[in-house]
Amino acid sequence: MKILAKDLKNYYEKEIEFSGMIENIRNLQWVQFIVLKDATGKVQVTVEKNDDNKKLNEIVDNLTIDSTIKVKGILKEAPKVKMGGMEIIPSEIIITSKSLEEKPFNYNDLSTVNLDTRLDYRFIDLRNERNNMIFKVQSTLTRYLREYLYNNNFTEIHTPKLIGAASESGSEVFEVKYFDRKAYLAQSPQFYKQMAMASGFDRVFEVAPCFRAENSNTSKHATEFTSFDVEFAYIDSYNDVMNLEAEMISYAFSKVKEEMGEEIKRVFDVDINVPTLPFPCMRLEDIYKELEERYGYIVNDEEKVDLTTEAERLCKDLARDKFNHEFLFVIDFPAEKRAFYHMRDENGKLQGYDLIWNGIEITTGAEREHRYEEIVKNAKEKGLGRDVEFYLEFFKYGCPPHGGFAIGLDRLTMLMLNIPTIKESMFLFRGPNRLNP
Amino acid sequence: MKILAKDLKNYYEKEIEFSGMIENIRNLQWVQFIVLKDATGKVQVTVEKNDDNKKLNEIVDNLTIDSTIKVKGILKEAPKVKMGGMEIIPSEIIITSKSLEEKPFNYNDLSTVNLDTRLDYRFIDLRNERNNMIFKVQSTLTRYLREYLYNNNFTEIHTPKLIGAASESGSEVFEVKYFDRKAYLAQSPQFYKQMAMASGFDRVFEVAPCFRAENSNTSKHATEFTSFDVEFAYIDSYNDVMNLEAEMISYAFSKVKEEMGEEIKRVFDVDINVPTLPFPCMRLEDIYKELEERYGYIVNDEEKVDLTTEAERLCKDLARDKFNHEFLFVIDFPAEKRAFYHMRDENGKLQGYDLIWNGIEITTGAEREHRYEEIVKNAKEKGLGRDVEFYLEFFKYGCPPHGGFAIGLDRLTMLMLNIPTIKESMFLFRGPNRLNP
Repeated sequence: MKILAKDLKNYYEKEIEFSGMIENIRNLQWVQFIVLKDATGKVQVTVEKNDDNKKLNEIVDNLTIDSTIKVKGILKEAPKVKMGGMEIIPSEIIITSKSLEEKPFNYNDLSTVNLDTRLDYRFIDLRNERNNMIFKVQSTLTRYLREYLYNNNFTEIHTPKLIGAASESGSEVFEVKYFDRKAYLAQSPQFYKQMAMASGFDRVFEVAPCFRAENSNTSKHATEFTSFDVEFAYIDSYNDVMNLEAEMISYAFSKVKEEMGEEIKRVFDVDINVPTLPFPCMRLEDIYKELEERYGYIVNDEEKVDLTTEAERLCKDLARDKFNHEFLFVIDFPAEKRAFYHMRDENGKLQGYDLIWNGIEITTGAEREHRYEEIVKNAKEKGLGRDVEFYLEFFKYGCPPHGGFAIGLDRLTMLMLNIPTIKESMFLFRGPNRLNP
Repeated sequence: MKILAKDLKNYYEKEIEFSGMIENIRNLQWVQFIVLKDATGKVQVTVEKNDDNKKLNEIVDNLTIDSTIKVKGILKEAPKVKMGGMEIIPSEIIITSKSLEEKPFNYNDLSTVNLDTRLDYRFIDLRNERNNMIFKVQSTLTRYLREYLYNNNFTEIHTPKLIGAASESGSEVFEVKYFDRKAYLAQSPQFYKQMAMASGFDRVFEVAPCFRAENSNTSKHATEFTSFDVEFAYIDSYNDVMNLEAEMISYAFSKVKEEMGEEIKRVFDVDINVPTLPFPCMRLEDIYKELEERYGYIVNDEEKVDLTTEAERLCKDLARDKFNHEFLFVIDFPAEKRAFYHMRDENGKLQGYDLIWNGIEITTGAEREHRYEEIVKNAKEKGLGRDVEFYLEFFKYGCPPHGGFAIGLDRLTMLMLNIPTIKESMFLFRGPNRLNP
């Protein structure tokens, strides 16, 4: 494997090979400097102009920025060189790919580039240091969300995205031509992670694409996104679900801060705050009361069945001012507004929650209805028929009490790095008007 | 969180709560025994029949197998109890879900149950210890494949499954109704993981579903499966790709053996053999020569452009007899049979390979063609037009030499545990005739 830029300091005075992409070339009277980068850092390559170097000088004369080269030479400690205090003195330079001189735009300064143009040329756009780092952060975050679950005996599953019935809400589901019949794309692994509960898995998670045929263009929505889904059994109530989610987030954030906190601060000017446990929790009704008392936010009673967008936004202030926290669990939503598989207690009270981070909802979670008679009743009340029959079967032959939640990874990344739109926190955004590249 | 069966030994003489699914009930004259299980193990619950226990005895009288209960009581060390040398003496039993008496089949003995029936009732079928464990092994395997890559500076990405053009091979692609136009389901993340190479990611992987509209019913194929995809830059040749794959597999296998080797031996009667490095490697032509010499396997020259199914199978014997190994890299396939994005050297020789494990192909890998003029030429030769134009763009503005491979996780799991069909090594199989549950 290639030597990484971040490991170069182990090779002083050694003959090495180093490969990278050319970030910059300075061709001066007596010397040529190349800044060579890989995904882990940068190094300067220094070529004096003299008779011995004639061939090398000629090669450098013809290099273009963003071409890739392999350099053979000696790595020298060079305290004067700002970039890491080192330089490579090459004996050979091999061009491994040549970039055209003219690019669609300068990816180091995207301030004047239209977002759609950037997305059209996403492979150029992602060369931008900030844009590239978004996905390193996402990868690190996902790694440690998973690690928390592995450490707690969870099993990762892979459920099908091709499904036979447009179950949850037919209107927003994509239809697939499946040989001589129709299939649909799963909007979430909800039914299948619950099936795992009925199958003796006890604790599962899945990280996979979800598909929503929503014809809406907002900064928070996409037709395809990556969902981090968790479901586990033998809970006593949805409090267990909230606690696990809070612990998992807190664990992963602490790891991200440890590994990438400084880089994130430098590139995004964002501090990763590791949330303290437990996360604060409020009843929907009490939130509206306090929003009015504290911030004069008044809203009609009929809107209070859910968080309005503005109320959601104000939850950032409320969580901060009341609890000195960025997160806020919201409970006691009216049951009739929620999915039929969310549990209600004997008084009809919903056993579920939303989690708001910095004024934006990142999760809906709940204890699920695992009792056959009750889930059948709930499905009927919502007018759900044949399409959910296969799902109702799961509860006939014993199924432990269980609950879970889902987090949109792209949205979580967006919020973590204070990115204005989900279009930037997805490797390749998909929306009603975008299927390319 | 609930106490896990595997952790019970830390609670002797303590008042505990333990929840699980009822595996067995023995209702004797003087005593009632319940075997209670969770995903990590089993424990015996012992209820003497006496006046103090009248209420408990009555509850147990009415329990059904596969119902779930929560037991409160004292955990006693009980050396005579075969199951872990312990028992719970309950003071309270709460039924948390009740199973119907009659099940579609007895999941503890599947020998007489038709595979299709099992798949129809997959949520019952997966309660079988062996079937359930398949996915714990898969999860552990995946965890450590990933860990190897994290340790080597790889970034996990999530590429879109909805794509605008039926790029690689139009005939086997699923068509999606996408608002007022058509979209397609990605057959692999190939183009997008290569895009990451052009975007400065250097080392990426993805674990995600792939979709193939192949109307074939074999034990090795599915219309949707989970692919473990790897791609990395600045390689010197496809040897780097083979070496990384071999190291990754060897690392993950050693971890699986360490964590689950004994259980796998007990349940599947399979030994996990950690493969030694490097894996053996042979030229296609030499394989046919040796198969003839060693095993008398003769095949027409025109079939020798690829491994025949029988030759593939015989590679198990060849790898074992010649190298004392389970794995075999095969190189020097005729270039014209391979995808246009596989690199050829200056003599037209393919820079790619297949990896055979115990006589079944698990991977195709290659150095990719990263040079713009060459990849354009290759695409033209294959008659590929507008659909790959967006892909060819990736190579215009500098792209490091790179390569990669993909492993089908379901197939790898199947082979690891010696399972006869991929239908059993997928949580929910999808084929031309199966979209349910």
